[in-house]
Amino acid sequence: MRDVYVIGAGMTKFEKALETSLKELSGAAVLDALQDAGLTPDQVEAAYVGNAVAGLVIGQEMIRGQVLLRPVGIQAIPIFNVENACASASTALHLGWQAVATGIHDIVLCLGAEKLTHRDKRVGMAAIGTAVDVEATAEAAQAASEGTDGGKPRSYFMDLYAQWTKAYMERSGATPEDFAGVVVKNQHNGALNPRAQYGAELTVDEVLADREVVWPLTLRMCSPISDGAAAVIIASEEAMRRLGANGVKILASTLVSGNNHDENDPTAGSAGRAAKMAYELAGVGPEDLSCVEVHDAAAPAELMIYEYIGLAKPGEGPALLRSGEANLGGKRPVNTSGGLLSKGHPIGATGIAQICEATWQLRGQAGARQVPGARLALTQNGGGWLDDDSAAMSVHILEAVR
Amino acid sequence: MRDVYVIGAGMTKFEKALETSLKELSGAAVLDALQDAGLTPDQVEAAYVGNAVAGLVIGQEMIRGQVLLRPVGIQAIPIFNVENACASASTALHLGWQAVATGIHDIVLCLGAEKLTHRDKRVGMAAIGTAVDVEATAEAAQAASEGTDGGKPRSYFMDLYAQWTKAYMERSGATPEDFAGVVVKNQHNGALNPRAQYGAELTVDEVLADREVVWPLTLRMCSPISDGAAAVIIASEEAMRRLGANGVKILASTLVSGNNHDENDPTAGSAGRAAKMAYELAGVGPEDLSCVEVHDAAAPAELMIYEYIGLAKPGEGPALLRSGEANLGGKRPVNTSGGLLSKGHPIGATGIAQICEATWQLRGQAGARQVPGARLALTQNGGGWLDDDSAAMSVHILEAVR
Repeated sequence: MRDVYVIGAGMTKFEKALETSLKELSGAAVLDALQDAGLTPDQVEAAYVGNAVAGLVIGQEMIRGQVLLRPVGIQAIPIFNVENACASASTALHLGWQAVATGIHDIVLCLGAEKLTHRDKRVGMAAIGTAVDVEATAEAAQAASEGTDGGKPRSYFMDLYAQWTKAYMERSGATPEDFAGVVVKNQHNGALNPRAQYGAELTVDEVLADREVVWPLTLRMCSPISDGAAAVIIASEEAMRRLGANGVKILASTLVSGNNHDENDPTAGSAGRAAKMAYELAGVGPEDLSCVEVHDAAAPAELMIYEYIGLAKPGEGPALLRSGEANLGGKRPVNTSGGLLSKGHPIGATGIAQICEATWQLRGQAGARQVPGARLALTQNGGGWLDDDSAAMSVHILEAVR
Repeated sequence: MRDVYVIGAGMTKFEKALETSLKELSGAAVLDALQDAGLTPDQVEAAYVGNAVAGLVIGQEMIRGQVLLRPVGIQAIPIFNVENACASASTALHLGWQAVATGIHDIVLCLGAEKLTHRDKRVGMAAIGTAVDVEATAEAAQAASEGTDGGKPRSYFMDLYAQWTKAYMERSGATPEDFAGVVVKNQHNGALNPRAQYGAELTVDEVLADREVVWPLTLRMCSPISDGAAAVIIASEEAMRRLGANGVKILASTLVSGNNHDENDPTAGSAGRAAKMAYELAGVGPEDLSCVEVHDAAAPAELMIYEYIGLAKPGEGPALLRSGEANLGGKRPVNTSGGLLSKGHPIGATGIAQICEATWQLRGQAGARQVPGARLALTQNGGGWLDDDSAAMSVHILEAVR
């Protein structure tokens, strides 16, 4: 296997962009990444395109990547349309990484794009709720998408998160204040990220006083409905040198599916397995990481993920947060981008948006949220839910090139 | 790159199976392929799952493969959900082939599955019509899906095929009798295939007397609405020997996207490019093939494809058909399975169903439609339409192991 580098990163601002098409979002991110890598569209040898719900939201299934890439002049090459719910973009990247690592291609484009806003707000919410076995959960999803909270629609996943959160509170002693603390941290970081959808200096009390979505989750503890796209160009070392590009090295790229989460062993589920494989491939451990992006689709998830990926021991997620270690300025900042909670969560774009943040941190381009001397970054991105585990889980570890 | 073999092939009968779920169809094909390879589900190292329109027809996007494979005990491994319209299954196979050829995996499952029937007949038709840029063609697709022919819904693609057919008639001298001849041949073959949706001994006059869908296409000149699934297990040579499996060798696997079809040079479009690459990889030419499966989504397409993939010179598709060379018993039978016209066309399953037919022919297991001594088979599978070319095009060449 050859070494593979991210040599270009581009993303749109994440926001509710009702009037902006998926094509426009994708085109902006791709051109941004191409420019960052110093490439023209004709130099791309293959494209891997992650999107989760365009079929349900805008009626475009089938040939999503071809439709999105044509306007920026990318055609004729192999285009792979891949889907893995909220891990769609990571899955696209994992396939692109395999193609470069094995020598099939030298320069490939990986794109994640999603449009969730719709004139009917329920459309996006209902679409997100399909990241399950819809046949088996049709009734639950229907009920949730229709909303039970004063008529406000909400994602079926927030019901799932609420359920896991209650179990987590029991086993870890986590409190609603801890979940609010995650929000305070990530909103602070988001305020420093010009591409983040939200960002503010909040207090724990303000987050707790928010509208309740489903106990114990208040509104800001849930990732928002977002539109956006993120793209990376990845390349072999030889191609990177030839192009004179500024790359970061992909030390590990892993993808697994779920097969039952074990609450007694947080590292046994899909996130734990994907992370363990990634640490082994990269030859590093959690203690070596400079910064981390995790899949905080709901605030409590961030604390659970600390445990899944070995940042904290079982039950010690809340203690890690309280220690300040995960804050900007702390020993190992988590979700410097603002995370899904503050940066936004256009679901099929999220995995590559995490890679963009890691790339910028490792190149020293993260501006006001820069982690000084960042050398190693990990990203964790999960998608869907099936039989008590994430349906898809991907972890990447990247290293700065000095 | 290592040699890769198809060591197991399985498929359901293609038919209108309104009461059968996509999960049931997929499970049957996968278990069939596993049994054929002599494998248990836990021996599969990764799965590549092609489906085109489950999001639009049954509301299942996001994690299609995980949902379909869980009931047969396949989980935890990497599962890739891929889409390329009617070439979705070939795209899944191409990725699986890459993974085995490059040494990432030794044994992988490639599945194509589709459910097009729905209580509301317009749903499946409308879904097929999305294999285009829906934003750009929304009005045309809407009009076609609503039907203009006595209120009968028809696929937008049959309007496209009618348009290409008229141009083809002008440049090749092909007649409606020729298109009916393709139907007569493929229906004859389908009658010999127990997994085919249709099959009958028809005359040219009977086909021409069918209900007109859109001139010059009559009903039997259009591939039907079908449900079905097809799966193959592919493996390295070492794994095949270790398992004592009966394999056929994949000499070439190619996938390209379109970039403008040139009517003056039939080999310049996506099918021509994909075939040329495949012939080069395999080190063979069209004259070496024993049998061929092509994407006859409408009857005239088969004649055009003869020219695209080098079976006939430009303009000589009709002459090749008239010569009887493509008939069972002819020099190089085409669509021995019955093709899409007779076997059926569950769109996301078709590419792997073609591979199943090639595998059975090369193993001498094709029963009454066996091509004696078949040694080399080619399959051609296209998907979607964008800017005057297929959006995705895949060609495979397989060789018997004696």
